[in-house]
Amino acid sequence: MSSEFGHLLRVGVFGQSHGKAIGVTIHGLPAGEAVDLEELGRFLDRRRPGGRGGLTTARKETDVPEFLSGLENGVTCGFPLCAVIQNSDQHSKDYSELADKPRPSHADYTAALKWGGYADMRGGGHFSGRLTAPLCVAGGIAKQILARKGVYVGAHLASVGEEEDERFPLHPTRELLESVGEKDFPVLNDEAGRRMQDLILKTRSELDSVGGTIECGAIGLPAGLGEPMFDGMENRLAAALFGIPGLKGVEFGSGFAGSRLRGSENNDAFAMEEGWVTALSNWAGGILGGITDGMPLIFRVAMKPTPSIAKAQKTVSLSQRADAELTIHGRHDPCIAQRAVPVVEAVAALVLLDTMLEGNHGTF
Amino acid sequence: MSSEFGHLLRVGVFGQSHGKAIGVTIHGLPAGEAVDLEELGRFLDRRRPGGRGGLTTARKETDVPEFLSGLENGVTCGFPLCAVIQNSDQHSKDYSELADKPRPSHADYTAALKWGGYADMRGGGHFSGRLTAPLCVAGGIAKQILARKGVYVGAHLASVGEEEDERFPLHPTRELLESVGEKDFPVLNDEAGRRMQDLILKTRSELDSVGGTIECGAIGLPAGLGEPMFDGMENRLAAALFGIPGLKGVEFGSGFAGSRLRGSENNDAFAMEEGWVTALSNWAGGILGGITDGMPLIFRVAMKPTPSIAKAQKTVSLSQRADAELTIHGRHDPCIAQRAVPVVEAVAALVLLDTMLEGNHGTF
Amino acid sequence: MSSEFGHLLRVGVFGQSHGKAIGVTIHGLPAGEAVDLEELGRFLDRRRPGGRGGLTTARKETDVPEFLSGLENGVTCGFPLCAVIQNSDQHSKDYSELADKPRPSHADYTAALKWGGYADMRGGGHFSGRLTAPLCVAGGIAKQILARKGVYVGAHLASVGEEEDERFPLHPTRELLESVGEKDFPVLNDEAGRRMQDLILKTRSELDSVGGTIECGAIGLPAGLGEPMFDGMENRLAAALFGIPGLKGVEFGSGFAGSRLRGSENNDAFAMEEGWVTALSNWAGGILGGITDGMPLIFRVAMKPTPSIAKAQKTVSLSQRADAELTIHGRHDPCIAQRAVPVVEAVAALVLLDTMLEGNHGTF
Amino acid sequence: MSSEFGHLLRVGVFGQSHGKAIGVTIHGLPAGEAVDLEELGRFLDRRRPGGRGGLTTARKETDVPEFLSGLENGVTCGFPLCAVIQNSDQHSKDYSELADKPRPSHADYTAALKWGGYADMRGGGHFSGRLTAPLCVAGGIAKQILARKGVYVGAHLASVGEEEDERFPLHPTRELLESVGEKDFPVLNDEAGRRMQDLILKTRSELDSVGGTIECGAIGLPAGLGEPMFDGMENRLAAALFGIPGLKGVEFGSGFAGSRLRGSENNDAFAMEEGWVTALSNWAGGILGGITDGMPLIFRVAMKPTPSIAKAQKTVSLSQRADAELTIHGRHDPCIAQRAVPVVEAVAALVLLDTMLEGNHGTF
Repeated sequence: MSSEFGHLLRVGVFGQSHGKAIGVTIHGLPAGEAVDLEELGRFLDRRRPGGRGGLTTARKETDVPEFLSGLENGVTCGFPLCAVIQNSDQHSKDYSELADKPRPSHADYTAALKWGGYADMRGGGHFSGRLTAPLCVAGGIAKQILARKGVYVGAHLASVGEEEDERFPLHPTRELLESVGEKDFPVLNDEAGRRMQDLILKTRSELDSVGGTIECGAIGLPAGLGEPMFDGMENRLAAALFGIPGLKGVEFGSGFAGSRLRGSENNDAFAMEEGWVTALSNWAGGILGGITDGMPLIFRVAMKPTPSIAKAQKTVSLSQRADAELTIHGRHDPCIAQRAVPVVEAVAALVLLDTMLEGNHGTF
Repeated sequence: MSSEFGHLLRVGVFGQSHGKAIGVTIHGLPAGEAVDLEELGRFLDRRRPGGRGGLTTARKETDVPEFLSGLENGVTCGFPLCAVIQNSDQHSKDYSELADKPRPSHADYTAALKWGGYADMRGGGHFSGRLTAPLCVAGGIAKQILARKGVYVGAHLASVGEEEDERFPLHPTRELLESVGEKDFPVLNDEAGRRMQDLILKTRSELDSVGGTIECGAIGLPAGLGEPMFDGMENRLAAALFGIPGLKGVEFGSGFAGSRLRGSENNDAFAMEEGWVTALSNWAGGILGGITDGMPLIFRVAMKPTPSIAKAQKTVSLSQRADAELTIHGRHDPCIAQRAVPVVEAVAALVLLDTMLEGNHGTF
Repeated sequence: MSSEFGHLLRVGVFGQSHGKAIGVTIHGLPAGEAVDLEELGRFLDRRRPGGRGGLTTARKETDVPEFLSGLENGVTCGFPLCAVIQNSDQHSKDYSELADKPRPSHADYTAALKWGGYADMRGGGHFSGRLTAPLCVAGGIAKQILARKGVYVGAHLASVGEEEDERFPLHPTRELLESVGEKDFPVLNDEAGRRMQDLILKTRSELDSVGGTIECGAIGLPAGLGEPMFDGMENRLAAALFGIPGLKGVEFGSGFAGSRLRGSENNDAFAMEEGWVTALSNWAGGILGGITDGMPLIFRVAMKPTPSIAKAQKTVSLSQRADAELTIHGRHDPCIAQRAVPVVEAVAALVLLDTMLEGNHGTF
Repeated sequence: MSSEFGHLLRVGVFGQSHGKAIGVTIHGLPAGEAVDLEELGRFLDRRRPGGRGGLTTARKETDVPEFLSGLENGVTCGFPLCAVIQNSDQHSKDYSELADKPRPSHADYTAALKWGGYADMRGGGHFSGRLTAPLCVAGGIAKQILARKGVYVGAHLASVGEEEDERFPLHPTRELLESVGEKDFPVLNDEAGRRMQDLILKTRSELDSVGGTIECGAIGLPAGLGEPMFDGMENRLAAALFGIPGLKGVEFGSGFAGSRLRGSENNDAFAMEEGWVTALSNWAGGILGGITDGMPLIFRVAMKPTPSIAKAQKTVSLSQRADAELTIHGRHDPCIAQRAVPVVEAVAALVLLDTMLEGNHGTF
C-alpha cells in the first residue's frame, strides 16, 4: 500500500516533483456530479505559490488539471477519475548536491535508506509539497459534491509561530467556512493575519522559516457517521491528514488543550433547542466515540516550519561518510502552513465524502 | 469495517462492558513466538483499576485472558489468536437512567443516534475503557515479540492537567522505556509525579476529573519502514491510536510545539557518529516523510478528562425532549490518562509489529 | 491479513480443530436484527456430521454457539459479534503420525513449510472442515437478515462424481431455495439424489472418497450492486468462497460450459414482461460487468474429493527424508461436498449482506 | 472501492474506451527494477487486435504507454507508477443506438441501473476489453520483475468451443511458459490450434462468436506463500481474475474435473526426489490450504463467447419500455479468449508479485 486512502472512495496520488506529470485517481466517485471547473480552479489557486510579496515561493505553477477519465462534459460518469497536471517549471540542477547531502528534516535521508539511489528525489520527488496539487483537485471535487448535500468544509490559518488567529465560533456558518479560506490571507481576524504576515516576512528575511497550525471545520454532516473503535471519524481523518507533507499533529475539539482541563470544563452539556438536541459547547469537536454527533466537526493540525531554509545547515556527506555543511538554494515557502490550508480542506472533504458514501449503516 | 486495525497483522476487539465477555482476535501473528504469560499479566496489571489511594476506580477487574486459539503451550501457532476475558463485576443497574439521559461527552448520544435503542450501552458498552484490556492482551504479546527483535516500546504520563513530567531524553534507553511504565505512577520525574497525583486526588475530591498527555517512545526500529504518503508511520499509528477511548490528539516529535518554532530550531541536523549517520536532535520524532529514520520514534497523545464526573451535569431527556439534570453514580477514574499509558504502548507495539512484518520492501 | 473477509461487514474465523474452541467475529453487523436461534440451530445441523447411514463421518459435533458479544436478548446490538463453539470430541492421538508424514492433498505439508513445527495441525488445525461451523454461524445470521429484506439464498448438491442433479430453474422460488437445502439429502431431484448416495456409500466401501459440485442461487437482490472491475460480485464472492476447505473452482452462470457455446447461445436476450425488463435466459448468472442485473444470482463451486481416504497412500517422512506409506485412520466424510452445501450458502449470504450494506452508491 | 486490487502492491485501472485516455497506477512497486520497454511492447502486442485473417477485430490500437511517474530512465523509482495510453481510433457513432437498447450480456443494462444515464458507455466504457491494455502494462512489468526472481508465468489458449489444446505437462519449463504465449496462436499443440482457428473463422462467418478457456501456469514460486483462509493464493488470484471482462469461471489444479474424481485419483502423492520433497501429480495446482507447495501453480479460466455478435438479437428499448431488436455493428472479436491469454498472465503476475512482496511471514 502507499499513496492512497479511503474505503469506498479511494484516492491515490502519483507523481514526482520533477517527473513528467503528477496526478490523482479517484475510484468510487458517484456518477452525475457536476464539477464546476472555474470553482475548482479558484480552489486550486488557493494553494498556488507565486503569491503576494514574498509570502510564498516564486515558483510558478499553473496546475491546470487535465481529466483523462471519469469526467465527461463536466459531469462525473461513475468510472474511476484520473486527473493529471503536467510538470514544467523545473530546476532540477538546484537539487544535484542533495543526493549526497540529505537536507535536514526532509525525506531525502529516509528515501535513500528505503529505495537506495533509485528514488527520484529531484525537487523532493514524491514527497514534495507539489503533490498536494492533485490532492486539491480531488478534494475540490469532493467539496462541491458535499456542498450539494449541505455539507460545508472550511479551514483557516490558526497560528503562525506564536501569532494566533481567533478560533471558529461554536456554530460556524456556511458563509464563514466558505469565505475565510478564500481570503488572500486565510484568517478569521485580519489584524492577527497582519501580524502573522509580518512574522513570515521577518522569518524569510532571516533566511529562516516558521511553522503554523490550521483549524478546519465542517457543518451539515449527518449525525451517526463513523464506526467504533478503529474506523471512527478521528481515525479516518487522522490517517489521511498525516499524508500532508510537514503535518506533525492532529487534534479534535479541545485536543491537547483539553488535556489540561477538568471534566466539568471539557464536557459538552446537552440541551434542547427548538425541539432538537444540541450541545452548549463543542470541546468534543463534533465527534463522540468516533461518531458524528451533529455538532460542527472541528479539528486542528500542526505544520512544521518549512525544512528548506536558506541558512547554512549541518548535514553529512553520504558518499564520504563525513560531516558536511549544506546551503539550500532555490525558492521555498517561509511558511508552508499558509498554503496547506486548502490542502487540509481537501483531505477533510475527501474523508467526509467517503464516510457519507458509506453512510450510517447502524441499522439496516 | 469497525473495531479492527492493521494490514498484515489484523487486530480486532469485541465485547461490551457488561456483556458476557470481551476479547481480541489477532490475524497474521507469526508462529513460534513464545508468550510469557506472567510478563503479560504484569503488563495487564498496569492498566488495571482498583489501585492506590483513590487514584483509580475501585471497580475490580481480574482481566485474566483465556486463549481460545492461536496459542498452544504458550507459543503462537500461526493461526488466528483469540483471547477472551470474562465479564463478572457488573453493576448494570447503575446505568439504567442513562438510556434516556445521555451522559455529556460520552458516546451514549451518538450510539442512540446510530443504533437506535439497540446498542448495548450498559457500562459504556463497546465504548467502555474496559475494552482496552483485550487491546493490552494483544499489545503485550506484540511487545514481547518486538523485544526479541531488539525493539522496545515504552510510555509515561507526560502531564496531568497543567502538571508536567519531563520529556524523554534524546536517546531513551531500553531500560528507561521498560521501567518507567512499570512504576506505580508511570512518570520519569517522581517529584512531578507526586504533584500529578495530588492534582488527581484534589480533582476527585472536587467531584471532578482531569485530562492528561502521554508520551511514547520506541527504539531499535529498522530505518526505512513506512510507505508514502498515506501509509506512513504517522498515518498508521494515528489511525490506530484514535481508537483509544478518550484520546483526542496525536503529535509526532515536536508536534504542535514545533509549529511555533523556526526551521532553524526544528530541523534535525545530521552528523556522523562512529561511522553512522545520526541526528543531533529529534524534533521529527524518528519519522521523515512517513518513514522511520533510525532515531527513536517519539509521539504524544492527548487524553481528555474522564467525562464521567460526580458533579451534577446538564443533559436532556430523550424521551421527554426536555432539558434534564444528571448525576452520574458509580465508580470512575478521576484521570484516565494514567491508566491509558500501557494502552498507548499496546497500540503502538501492534502497529510497529505490523509494519515490521510488512518490512521495508523499498527494493526487492 | 488472513482468515477474514468482507468490506463493511468483516467476518473473521478463528480456532483449530483440536484447540480449546473455534469461533467467528463479525464487525459491522447492523443493530436491531433479531436472530432466531432455533432457526440458526437447524441451519447449523445441516453441516453437522454424524448423519445417516455412513454418508458422513460419525464424529459427533454439538456445535452450539455461545455468543460472547454483539447479541443481546437475541437481537444484534450494533457492536462486534463474537460466537464461540467449544471443542470437545477430540482424538488427537489419531494424528500423531501425521506431523512427520504429511497427508497427500492436505495442508499438512504447506503448514510445515510456512510455520515450521509451530502450526497446531492436530485434526487439520485451522484448515479443518470443522472451521466451517463458525462460518455457518455467521452465515446463518446473515441469511436471516437477508430474508427480512426479501433476499433468499439456497444451494443444492449439483453433482457427486459423475452423478448429476438437475439445475435450478430459470426463476427459482423462495420456497425452492429455502427447502432444498433442508432435505436430508440436499438435491432437487431425489432420484438423482439416491444415485449420488449410492455412489458415496460405494466409494466409502472402497476406502475411497469422491468429489462433487454445489449450485447456489440467490433471489431478491437489488440490481446495481457491485463495483467495476475488481470489486464486482464475482470477485467478492469468489474471494470468499475459495476460503472453504476443499473448494477448487467457482463459476458464474454458464461458467465453463459457457466457454463451449456460441454467443448466440450464451447471450441472454432482454424482454419486457409486465412493464419490467427481464431476461429470457440467465447464462450470465445474474451478473453483468460484475454488477447485479436483477435476475437470480447463480454460481457453482467444485469440491475436491475428501483427501483423507482409508486406502494406503504414498507420502514422505519429513524427518527421514525418505519415501513412506501412510494409512489415515479416524473418521472422515467420503464426500465433503454434501456437508459443504450450507457452508456455500453461508459464505454467499455474508458476501451478499456485505454488498447490500455498501449499497448501490452509483449516484449519491 | 472499485477498479483496484492488491495488498502491498495496489493496481488500479482507469479510463473509458472512448474517453481521452486509459491507464493504470501501481502503488507499492519496489524501486530499482529495470523495465525493458521493448519486451513490454512485445507483451502488449500479444493482446493487440488487428491481427491475422479475421481472427480478431480490425480495430487498430497502438497501445504505447506513456509513463507519467514511477519510472525514470527505464527503472522503477519507488514511487507510484502511472502509465497512460491515449485513446484515438474511436467510432463513437457506432454506439449511439445502444444507450437505449442494451446489448444482451453486456454491462450496458447494469450500468444504466447503477449510474443512470451518467455512465460513459461509449464503446463499452470502463467495461471495454480495451481496459485490459493498461492491465497488461502493469502485468508486463510484474512479469519482468518476477523473472529476475526466477518466477515464470505463462498461459495458453486451452480450448475454443469444443476444440481443446493439450494441458501443461506436470513440470512446465521456463521455456515452455515463455514461448507458448508468444506464438501467433498461443497453444501447445499447433494442430489443435489450427482446429481452433478454423472454428473461430467459421463462427465469425456465421455472424456469431465462441467462448474458450485459458490455462495459466507459474513456476519458481517460493513455497509457503498465501495465508489461510481468505487470503490464500486461490482467493487472491480469483478475486483479481474475475476483473477480466468476460471471465466467468476460475478453477485451480483439477478444479471442476477433480469434482468427478475419487480421492485416490485426485490426491497428489508425495515422494522424495534427489533429497527434495516433490509430488507425483499436481491435481492441487500447486496450492494446498491456500498456500503454495512448491509445485507449479496451475489454474484455468472460462471466457464467455464475445457478447457482441453481428446477428440480430432480442433486447428492449428502455425509453419505450418495449421489446426491440438490435443488430450490433462495428468490429468485434469472434473469440475474446485468444486475446485474453496475456491478460490472464498479467493479472496472475501482479497477484504473484504482490504475494511475494508480502513474503512468507509464517515466522518472524
